Order: sequence, then C-alpha cells, then structure tokens
Amino acid sequence: MSAAKGLKARVFVMPKNGVLDPQGKAIGHALGTLGFEGIGEVRTGKVIELELSETDPDAAKAAAEAMARKLLANTVIESFRVEIA
Amino acid sequence: MSAAKGLKARVFVMPKNGVLDPQGKAIGHALGTLGFEGIGEVRTGKVIELELSETDPDAAKAAAEAMARKLLANTVIESFRVEIA
Repeated sequence: MSAAKGLKARVFVMPKNGVLDPQGKAIGHALGTLGFEGIGEVRTGKVIELELSETDPDAAKAAAEAMARKLLANTVIESFRVEIA
Repeated sequence: MSAAKGLKARVFVMPKNGVLDPQGKAIGHALGTLGFEGIGEVRTGKVIELELSETDPDAAKAAAEAMARKLLANTVIESFRVEIA
C-alpha cells in the first residue's frame, strides 16, 4: 500500500483571516458552556500528514507545497504551511 | 467577541494508529491521480487554535489539554498534542 519511506510532510491548512469559521465559533461556545473561561477567538483547520519517498527535505517541501496548492488547500479562502520531519 | 489576549494554544488532533482514516486514503488516491508520485500513507487530523486570556504557559497548556480531553478530541480513537505560542 505504501511507497518507500522517506520523509514525512505535515501540511497545515487554516482559514484565512476574515473568513468565517463557524466550527471554530461552535467550539468556542461549547467550551464556554463546559465552564472554560478566558477563551477568545477559536479557529479550526486541517492537518494532512504525508509519507513521502523523497529523501531530500527541500524537494519534499516543494512537493508538499505543490500538493497543497493543487488539492489540499483552497487558496482562495485557506492558507497553508508545510513542515518536513 | 474575544476575551483578553494572552497566549495562543494549538491543539493537534490525529486519529490513533490503527484507526481507519478514509479521508486520508482518499487524499492519497487523489494525489496519485494528479500525478504525484512516491506517496505512502496519508493521515488527516484537525488543528484547533485557541486564544486564551491565560498568560502563564504551563497553565495555558494544562487548560488546553483539559479542553482537548473534554471536547476537542475523542480519546478513544484520537490522540492530541498541545503547543503553546
């Protein structure tokens, strides 16, 4: 099922500032209901962890960024960040 | 809308090893279809960014972990990690 193991890429996808995040709002409200205090804005996003066969960190990062732009993030409303581990 | 600004907590929630992740599978398949090569396992998770009024990092971390256990993560099938920034 898997390609050879090289590096692991983590792609973090968050809604851009100014984009409504109703799920985050709901979580903030629910935390308040549960008694947690001092909670300001809550934003939710996605993490996608990819195992890559690529072993060069720069190439892996470039590949993961290309994947994010093409599929993982909707860059109109979401920003993304890639971490290589 | 917001409480006073203190620290920001990031809670990362991932499916535990061995728990099926059909969304990750679908992403892996779609990336292959788009021509990306050398992709092994793909796992998807959530990030929740919380603005906290708490200004002590240890207390903020403890609070965010309590929130994760109570609401943000289903600890039967998901693991979580908290980062304070």
